[in-house]
Amino acid sequence: MSLVMDVPEKIADPKAASYASRTAELSRATAPLVPTYEGDFVLDEHLALECGRTLAMPTLHYAVYGRLNAARDNAVLVCHALSGSAQVGSWWPELFAEGALLSLERDCVICVNLIGSCYGSTGPASVDPETGKVYGPDFPLVTVRDNVRAQAKLLRSLGIERLSLVVGGSIGGMQAIEWAILFPEQVERAVIVGVSPLPAMGIALNHLQRQAIQHDPKWSGGRYSSLRPPQEGLALARQIAMLSYKSPALFDERFGRKPNRNGEDPHALDFDGGGLSGGRFDIAGYLDEQGQRLVSRFDDNAYLAILRLMETWEPTRGYRDGNEAFSRIKAKLTVVGISSDTLFPVENVREFVNTMRAGGAEVEYREMESRHGHDAFLAEQGELVRLLG
Amino acid sequence: MSLVMDVPEKIADPKAASYASRTAELSRATAPLVPTYEGDFVLDEHLALECGRTLAMPTLHYAVYGRLNAARDNAVLVCHALSGSAQVGSWWPELFAEGALLSLERDCVICVNLIGSCYGSTGPASVDPETGKVYGPDFPLVTVRDNVRAQAKLLRSLGIERLSLVVGGSIGGMQAIEWAILFPEQVERAVIVGVSPLPAMGIALNHLQRQAIQHDPKWSGGRYSSLRPPQEGLALARQIAMLSYKSPALFDERFGRKPNRNGEDPHALDFDGGGLSGGRFDIAGYLDEQGQRLVSRFDDNAYLAILRLMETWEPTRGYRDGNEAFSRIKAKLTVVGISSDTLFPVENVREFVNTMRAGGAEVEYREMESRHGHDAFLAEQGELVRLLG
Repeated sequence: MSLVMDVPEKIADPKAASYASRTAELSRATAPLVPTYEGDFVLDEHLALECGRTLAMPTLHYAVYGRLNAARDNAVLVCHALSGSAQVGSWWPELFAEGALLSLERDCVICVNLIGSCYGSTGPASVDPETGKVYGPDFPLVTVRDNVRAQAKLLRSLGIERLSLVVGGSIGGMQAIEWAILFPEQVERAVIVGVSPLPAMGIALNHLQRQAIQHDPKWSGGRYSSLRPPQEGLALARQIAMLSYKSPALFDERFGRKPNRNGEDPHALDFDGGGLSGGRFDIAGYLDEQGQRLVSRFDDNAYLAILRLMETWEPTRGYRDGNEAFSRIKAKLTVVGISSDTLFPVENVREFVNTMRAGGAEVEYREMESRHGHDAFLAEQGELVRLLG
Repeated sequence: MSLVMDVPEKIADPKAASYASRTAELSRATAPLVPTYEGDFVLDEHLALECGRTLAMPTLHYAVYGRLNAARDNAVLVCHALSGSAQVGSWWPELFAEGALLSLERDCVICVNLIGSCYGSTGPASVDPETGKVYGPDFPLVTVRDNVRAQAKLLRSLGIERLSLVVGGSIGGMQAIEWAILFPEQVERAVIVGVSPLPAMGIALNHLQRQAIQHDPKWSGGRYSSLRPPQEGLALARQIAMLSYKSPALFDERFGRKPNRNGEDPHALDFDGGGLSGGRFDIAGYLDEQGQRLVSRFDDNAYLAILRLMETWEPTRGYRDGNEAFSRIKAKLTVVGISSDTLFPVENVREFVNTMRAGGAEVEYREMESRHGHDAFLAEQGELVRLLG
């Protein structure tokens, strides 16, 4: 039994239309989209994990935008990426624009925070109900597939039996594909942006980010104090990741070889006490800022958990072969590659599409022309909306 | 006065031909090339640096292969890259193959260890003769141009007034171009592989590598003990750099998503005591090995010094514009771009060539087709030799 069985009433309101219109209006005035409902679903059972362990009664934090209609056939699931949250209205607002992929008038849009993350769902910073202690570094490997199975339980508790659409970029796209494979009868359409199983270069980047965090003396084997988290390590990890989120051309265009806009001189003899450090270039100042921004909103162990989830995703794992996995899919898939993506290069995305097609899936492929690299699915939402229009 | 005025005799031996033949024979038998001479040149004056400081009587460690002929017109200067040494015969052996760019019979090949490095020339680990203390983090910014000026003093001490060729890849190529600009009368031809002023992405990579080293608690503000150097930081820095030395396609081909060849399982629940670490993929095992290899042969502060030298190189710096700088060049330049280079992408190399041409330099551009990325100038020497043939 779900602890939130009353939720469907909250989101299936006859006044849905008026609320949706008001929210849409707010959106057009660039105010942030406010969820119709945001809350927690606590599994009333242990979640059996792919790795063999179980997670005791995990919490799924989720947000709902719009209302479920009487037929309960207008549910859309949006899946978030590495550092995202359930508040898709905040990080993907343009997808709710008039005529765009998501509609507050038409759809009941649901977004669930990943297990392992730090935005409300159970993660390494949560207390293990079985031990009464914080999981910390003992948090088990919770995969994309584990998450999708947990999300399915949440949707069932909301009385949702079928999704008209599952959509996501990056790790969100991994979840969308996993949904289409695991629950073929429950997914009508899936839109997947900028993703394939993580290529070797991406695994390499994850490996470096993990070291950056785990080398921070404050990490303390993962048992750090929440008052004194390993911020230097996480900031460096984020900076390493940023190199794969943007494109070299964009960096040249925006920063080039310019000195930092605060006036530091990279050619100066001494800066920060030593000749070996030097004044920063503009790109370095930008990266430092990006690192600090993430540190203010994310947890080190949660970051490590999501890295593992990302790199271990293999949709054919556990199946005899690609045919067995992809022939299960009944949804119509649209896969979008991003021309300048260096984390999931279009060559890899196209090859993945061909593999899914060879397995019998119906996959349409579109390519987004962008200089923004992997981040384009967030940075150029208007372009993405046009491409999907 | 140079302290090594006797060197020309050592390298200008009438028995040169026979020595050269023997060495060439050894080379063909894949034995390492042995320098004709290897030693130190100590400047008998302070080296005035671009940054405004001086370096007290720096040592230049250099190696010579082959012999200087009577006319002293067969001198070739090879310039090394980031972690290279003066022993060009060890790291670029195939360029000495029969019919290749360098000939022990024809040329007197000289290679000088960069100031700031840790292979014999003065660097951060050296003792400052003025204070009697190790430079450490107080080592000044010594630029590519500073190095070329010091190298010119060494060559003058050897009685060499003109170079038939200056050649280098990466930071070695920066030195070759700087030679052609600074000493136009002394350079007949220059071959430059895989380089342009460092693009924004490269500056970003340097910024991350610097943090990796400086976050290592053993770094101690650069005043670490040589018995207890910050190895974790340097290893991570090297791994970060490796991502820009190889190409994503090569990584996919060689490592793909394979688990580490030692048998670790990335999908296993626990590895190394925690769910957040996980067993390594093959690419991660490879990177760890690369990091350890560098740690065993390089110094952290030297690494930081060379990073700065690399990122601060701007050939037009101090000149009114590109025209004033590049119109000085009298040498015939051959610039080679590497098709899969992500550190110095061919787009940037081509643009740089066009800038030099617009300034009046005679530049031939060739492109090396390779999947090896930036490293191709070392990893595919045979291919490079053919391209230059």
